[in-house]
Amino acid sequence: MDKIIHINIEDRLAVVQPGVIYAELDRALSPHGFFFPPDPASGSVCTLGGNVATNAGGIKGAKYGTTKDYVLTLEVVLPDGRILHTGSKCMKSVSGYDLTRLFVGSEGTIGVITKITFKINPKPPVTSTAMATFETLEDGGQAISEIMYSGIIPSALEFVDQQSLKAINENTDLGLPEVEIMLVAETDGYTKEETEFQMKTIMEIFRKNNATTVKHADESKGGAAALWAARKSAYGVMARINNNLIVEDLAVPMSKVPEMLRFISDLAKKYDLKIPTVGHAGDGNLHPVVSFDGTDPDQVGRVEDASEELFEKVIEMGGTLTGEHGIGLAKMPLCILSMMRSVWIS
Amino acid sequence: MDKIIHINIEDRLAVVQPGVIYAELDRALSPHGFFFPPDPASGSVCTLGGNVATNAGGIKGAKYGTTKDYVLTLEVVLPDGRILHTGSKCMKSVSGYDLTRLFVGSEGTIGVITKITFKINPKPPVTSTAMATFETLEDGGQAISEIMYSGIIPSALEFVDQQSLKAINENTDLGLPEVEIMLVAETDGYTKEETEFQMKTIMEIFRKNNATTVKHADESKGGAAALWAARKSAYGVMARINNNLIVEDLAVPMSKVPEMLRFISDLAKKYDLKIPTVGHAGDGNLHPVVSFDGTDPDQVGRVEDASEELFEKVIEMGGTLTGEHGIGLAKMPLCILSMMRSVWIS
Repeated sequence: MDKIIHINIEDRLAVVQPGVIYAELDRALSPHGFFFPPDPASGSVCTLGGNVATNAGGIKGAKYGTTKDYVLTLEVVLPDGRILHTGSKCMKSVSGYDLTRLFVGSEGTIGVITKITFKINPKPPVTSTAMATFETLEDGGQAISEIMYSGIIPSALEFVDQQSLKAINENTDLGLPEVEIMLVAETDGYTKEETEFQMKTIMEIFRKNNATTVKHADESKGGAAALWAARKSAYGVMARINNNLIVEDLAVPMSKVPEMLRFISDLAKKYDLKIPTVGHAGDGNLHPVVSFDGTDPDQVGRVEDASEELFEKVIEMGGTLTGEHGIGLAKMPLCILSMMRSVWIS
Repeated sequence: MDKIIHINIEDRLAVVQPGVIYAELDRALSPHGFFFPPDPASGSVCTLGGNVATNAGGIKGAKYGTTKDYVLTLEVVLPDGRILHTGSKCMKSVSGYDLTRLFVGSEGTIGVITKITFKINPKPPVTSTAMATFETLEDGGQAISEIMYSGIIPSALEFVDQQSLKAINENTDLGLPEVEIMLVAETDGYTKEETEFQMKTIMEIFRKNNATTVKHADESKGGAAALWAARKSAYGVMARINNNLIVEDLAVPMSKVPEMLRFISDLAKKYDLKIPTVGHAGDGNLHPVVSFDGTDPDQVGRVEDASEELFEKVIEMGGTLTGEHGIGLAKMPLCILSMMRSVWIS
């Protein structure tokens, strides 16, 4: 079984074999007050080798980046059997071409990763959490933009759309307001003054933009966990809507999140599908979840047509086909098409 | 003349032509409360295209990374004249191979960069600064390691060695204690509580490790600028020691900074050279400054021999030939040799 080879706090790095589960590394770093920030939602089951191969992200992307920002060295077996060592264990190195990043996100197409050195981070010990609901996507979107202008980068800024809120209410007793968009924000730091200063700024922006509810985590009422309940229950609930579900993944420039959500909502109506959407407002990464009955050829056809239209729009808006899940087999034709159109000018 | 094409705060990016000076972008971002963090020491004269071509770093590397961590897209003219567009303006994208990073740090060898999109950051408005001196490299080194264990990442953690302190005292009236190592630390945040909490932790570590002086910036006595004076005057002073000077650049794992400084000090004695050293303790990036008379063939020979011995040691210690200045022509033979030895196992 693959294992954590080495953790070195003073040099700020962890060396692992690729089969180690994300959560195992997290557990090993925790006693030192350190963490490996990408924090994918699948952390309890995903392997670190897979994280590197897909350049996995998570809810901390806006503040802490994704897997690519933490890979210092790789040992890779190339298709001809040779073993390649890339990168440096130093925090800074500009010696030679950056071959490490060529393998990060390459999904196993150019080599097999057999050892990884990650840069690790101290985990800020204090957090503050708040939730807000907005009647309209436009108000929520304006709040997201104003948070960026304010100079605060939340450690998480997540959203849940109206279709998701409806699905959650149908399957839980959370009794959420079925508004067009709900935002959940988290700030972090070393002191309560720091996290509350940031959160106060964010909550003022929520209120200024007509939030219908603004709740600050109150430890006597379940604290942050209560505010995260809607966002964290979303995928489980969506799996109950129909026989099949596709968790889509796309990203757009942050200011275009509301426009994209409006488009997805219209697309669901046009194709008579349910496409609840959740995601990361803080970095423009959206996960529309397409629910359908895979035994119904008509529904499958509508899903395919809707997907095609969705990704045409994503590209048109300057977005990307995948923010953190990867191309895989499903998006290969789209990826090739998109590259042919936009990568080469002449 | 090259120009800043576009600054977009809500999408957190700046699009520039490569000839724009680092400081010009900094001035344009400043009214928005944003900055482009790499902050190279040559910021007032270096171009952003050069920053990308060399993957430039600076004193904020430990906390904020280097240029590579901020390049979202590139427009590059390839040797055959074709124009390539790499990357995405989205904060997250894993669509296709990461060609952007292949060009970052490639020093113009595989294409000419003609347009860049940078991710930009809000600039934390509050900082705190402190300085400490240590009789021995070992005490200073232990303090650096303990800061890392404490979970604080200073926004800067710089050092000045004994030879540098002597050179500064000979050429200024700063009257510094000529100890083996001086450290200057800066913390940043949104509140004074946050920056002082971090700095208090750091100063306790300084004292615990036998610091002979610990000074906290006092605005009534010139504030942070007074504490930075030694570090910031170093290069100017060193240029006066002799006719020629080579500002070297190397990096080692952070825990090996004291061992490397001891080696450099012994090397200077062995070859009868002056090699004062300053650099970035927070990320293990050292700048030994070799002073010599370029009209004296004997001295030039000793400089060459000392350099060779220095970089043999760097590689042996798991270090890198260049942390932020690049390979250029001078280090090409070393780079090829080092790759032949360590990159390929079989």
